[in-house]
Amino acid sequence: MEKFISLAHGDGGELSHRLIRDVFINAFGDGNEAMFDAASVIISNSKIAVTTDSFVIKPIFFPGGSIGKLAVAGTVNDLAVSGAKPVYLTCGFIIEEGFPVADLRQIVLDMANEARKTGVVIVAGDTKVVERGSADGVYINTTGIGVYQPNMGCSLEFEEGDAIIVSGTIGDHGIAVLTARGELGITVPINSDCASLNTMLDEVLQHSKGVRIMRDPTRGGLATTLVEIAEDFNITMKINEIDVPVKGEVHGVCDLLGFDPLYLANEGKAIIVVAENERNKVIDILREFPEGENAVVIGTIIGKEKGQLLLETPLGSKRILNRLSGTMFPRIC
Amino acid sequence: MEKFISLAHGDGGELSHRLIRDVFINAFGDGNEAMFDAASVIISNSKIAVTTDSFVIKPIFFPGGSIGKLAVAGTVNDLAVSGAKPVYLTCGFIIEEGFPVADLRQIVLDMANEARKTGVVIVAGDTKVVERGSADGVYINTTGIGVYQPNMGCSLEFEEGDAIIVSGTIGDHGIAVLTARGELGITVPINSDCASLNTMLDEVLQHSKGVRIMRDPTRGGLATTLVEIAEDFNITMKINEIDVPVKGEVHGVCDLLGFDPLYLANEGKAIIVVAENERNKVIDILREFPEGENAVVIGTIIGKEKGQLLLETPLGSKRILNRLSGTMFPRIC
Repeated sequence: MEKFISLAHGDGGELSHRLIRDVFINAFGDGNEAMFDAASVIISNSKIAVTTDSFVIKPIFFPGGSIGKLAVAGTVNDLAVSGAKPVYLTCGFIIEEGFPVADLRQIVLDMANEARKTGVVIVAGDTKVVERGSADGVYINTTGIGVYQPNMGCSLEFEEGDAIIVSGTIGDHGIAVLTARGELGITVPINSDCASLNTMLDEVLQHSKGVRIMRDPTRGGLATTLVEIAEDFNITMKINEIDVPVKGEVHGVCDLLGFDPLYLANEGKAIIVVAENERNKVIDILREFPEGENAVVIGTIIGKEKGQLLLETPLGSKRILNRLSGTMFPRIC
Repeated sequence: MEKFISLAHGDGGELSHRLIRDVFINAFGDGNEAMFDAASVIISNSKIAVTTDSFVIKPIFFPGGSIGKLAVAGTVNDLAVSGAKPVYLTCGFIIEEGFPVADLRQIVLDMANEARKTGVVIVAGDTKVVERGSADGVYINTTGIGVYQPNMGCSLEFEEGDAIIVSGTIGDHGIAVLTARGELGITVPINSDCASLNTMLDEVLQHSKGVRIMRDPTRGGLATTLVEIAEDFNITMKINEIDVPVKGEVHGVCDLLGFDPLYLANEGKAIIVVAENERNKVIDILREFPEGENAVVIGTIIGKEKGQLLLETPLGSKRILNRLSGTMFPRIC
């Protein structure tokens, strides 16, 4: 383990993984790495889901959303992909001295609107203020509580031939946020995909018993999230590069600047692994929603021996994909 | 409402009160100000308590504790004073680039130890890293979930003659943290009172049916917390200055620098309002614990018409106390 925290420890890739494993999981004893997604706990004999996330995105207002909308949607999605119905949210604000109250009002309004839309209730809050220069505007933590519904959920059991679905184009959030910072010197008409997916994913679980797992590919992008699934469940996944949906503008910026869309952050996309015979049904359900209109199958489970993610290129060659390693960009969520 | 956030908006006094009321409560609709303490929610037909708190204390290691110990004890206490048994905790870290990993390990260890001591399980976590200069070392959010126990709790109904108890000396945390910063140019042998009170308060509730309310006088201190109770329940409370326990060293620093101990932060103290005929029993229970060995009655409820806190001075004169107004000190929790 390194001696000092670097930005790469926060980008959701290999170093984040090691930081969590080496510093947190050991100390918290009973914990396992799954605690860094939604955790299942028992309370008064009911199984509930709990998740926490801090939002430090820069800029706080970006095309397609704000830190407020993101702080609700991000935590709602963590619960939704775990198969739980999001019910309650808490919010903790760390505000920099001098922050405009008008901006704070807008952020809080965005949170309230997104909460209303998704049906979650914000039940507890906290505000702290730090001196000028001790934060960058505002940071928000949201913690979510969800309930699992009877006879609904993800089996977490995989078969060869299972389909890997992504609910839409990838990389929109990463590119929207990066270009909104103005540092790259380019402007692209791309909105963040920031959206709450709970209604859509609930519909999938209501109508399909074949869902193996759902995940939201945020920090670290599609590739890192798939590698995590592959390693956690010791399955070999193969995705076809040509099938992965990427907007032309996102491709353009990536080509220009040397980014890989597979590692760009998303804030309104789900990965769904589903039994082969249910794939079309799930795709149809997803496409009924605006958030899922570009849903497609991008790959399959091809083995159950090795925890590995393979990418098949348009030329037919295959290569192993790893977690994001090294800083791609900080402060994207 | 002001146009920009100032440090005083974060000190737990009058401006914090207005910020929460004007910006948050309105937007979150169903919310009320109680959401900024532990909230009661129903999940799968069970009533549970939820609370959230961000910790931005400076310095992160201080005499008697660290931000890690505080982040557990603070949230455990929020649940405990609401009458709930703390069960689960989440933790969200915002870490500044360059932060020493050894310090992070120590903080995480302090959290793990305090969690073990109090019997709560840390079930979910998150880490974010921000650039050098965009945070001050590390900030931690903890969100706590607790369960209410059958036939145990606070009545929230008050009678004239009810006793106001404080579980020990006040102001220790504020003075310990302030002097630890080294800015005041004085050193005082005072430790923070930072401690989890759940076991002690559980014992009180187990054995007394006369408890009206319990609160932890953190930011804003004893006076602000009592004013909040008085206003929320429209009761007149009177405390006797001479009965309020304050350590000699704390008095000394206050006299030297013009602070009022009644407004200094505490992180291991509880205020308990209890029926007159139960006061001695509750005091006896508190004194069985090291955290409660200096528990005393400091005042009484003297009326039910006006939400007001009165201080009776040693000379017998009375004055109205208000919430803390203006910055006392930021970053004390």
